[in-house]
Parts: sequence; structure tokens; C-alpha cells
Amino acid sequence: MVQKLSPEARAQFFSDHPEWKEAEGKDAAQTTLQFKDFNEAWGFMSRVALYADKHDHHPEWFNVYNRVEVTLTTHDADGLSERDVAMAEFLDSLRS
Amino acid sequence: MVQKLSPEARAQFFSDHPEWKEAEGKDAAQTTLQFKDFNEAWGFMSRVALYADKHDHHPEWFNVYNRVEVTLTTHDADGLSERDVAMAEFLDSLRS
Repeated sequence: MVQKLSPEARAQFFSDHPEWKEAEGKDAAQTTLQFKDFNEAWGFMSRVALYADKHDHHPEWFNVYNRVEVTLTTHDADGLSERDVAMAEFLDSLRS
Repeated sequence: MVQKLSPEARAQFFSDHPEWKEAEGKDAAQTTLQFKDFNEAWGFMSRVALYADKHDHHPEWFNVYNRVEVTLTTHDADGLSERDVAMAEFLDSLRS
């Protein structure tokens, strides 16, 4: 069973990852990524999909054309966990 | 320039495609698809992405795990057009 981040670890995450904001109304982290076009956005999403399937940890995400909005949370932990931190850092590594 | 559907053609679309509902607050069509798991949902999304890129017509869509919510509209037409009808029928052909 994966555990929710401690309040200190949670605060540290948002401090260390300025591209991520606290979601409203739930214990989750959100970011928006902007690409050149749909082709590039889809390339990004495909890399995240492989990561998600491999780690059995899935984003909530919205896409229209070149924009991707991502929300991360861990349902089993009822909030942000180390799984979200790891996924957020993977996503950040793909930003152009 | 692609044209908006006539009121008659629009009504016919929703009558012929019961899985699609009118979006609230904009001239768009929405549906939700449910799959076995993320792998299957992603397979569906990948097929739609190839279609979207080929036809230069892109969905607004949200995914979490095995659920995909799709909204179709044509920005150039400021509403539903034949492009959305064609894409909706392609999506419907992929339902399991």
C-alpha cells in the first residue's frame, strides 16, 4: 500500500517543482504543457502512456491540439504519493 | 472553409448517433467510452490520434485509466460540422 506524502514532503515537492500547482478541491498536482502541434503533443503523451502502463500509475489528462493538462494523484493513497513525484519528474524531463 | 451543420443536419446527427450528446454551453458533441483497462483505452486513443493527424481535425478529450471522454467541435466553423460527423462515426466504429 502506497502512502500519502507527509505534509513536509508535499510542500517540498511543490517548492522543488514550480511547474506544478496544487489542484483545487483534491489532493493532486496539476500542470499544463504546450507543444508545437498535435503531432508533438501526441509524441509526449505516448511516452507518458508507456511509463504509465509500465508503472501501473496513470495520469488524469486532457488534450486539445497542442495542449496537454495533467493531474496527478494516487487513488490508493487518497492523495499525492511518491508515485506522483516520480511521474511528475518523468514528465518534466520531457518538456521542450 | 468548412461550414457549420444546418439545424436539420445537426438534429439528424444526434438522432442517428444516440451515444453522442449535445455539450453544455457550446455547439459540440460529447461521448464517453469505457474500456477494459488503460492499455485498451490507449489503443483506442492511438487510432483516433492517427485519424486526427491525417485529417487535421482534433478532438478535445480527457482520459483517466480506462475512461475516455471526447468532445467534438470545429473551431473554424464555430460549431459542429461534417468533420465532426465523420470523426464521430470513426470513433463509433472502434467501440467494443
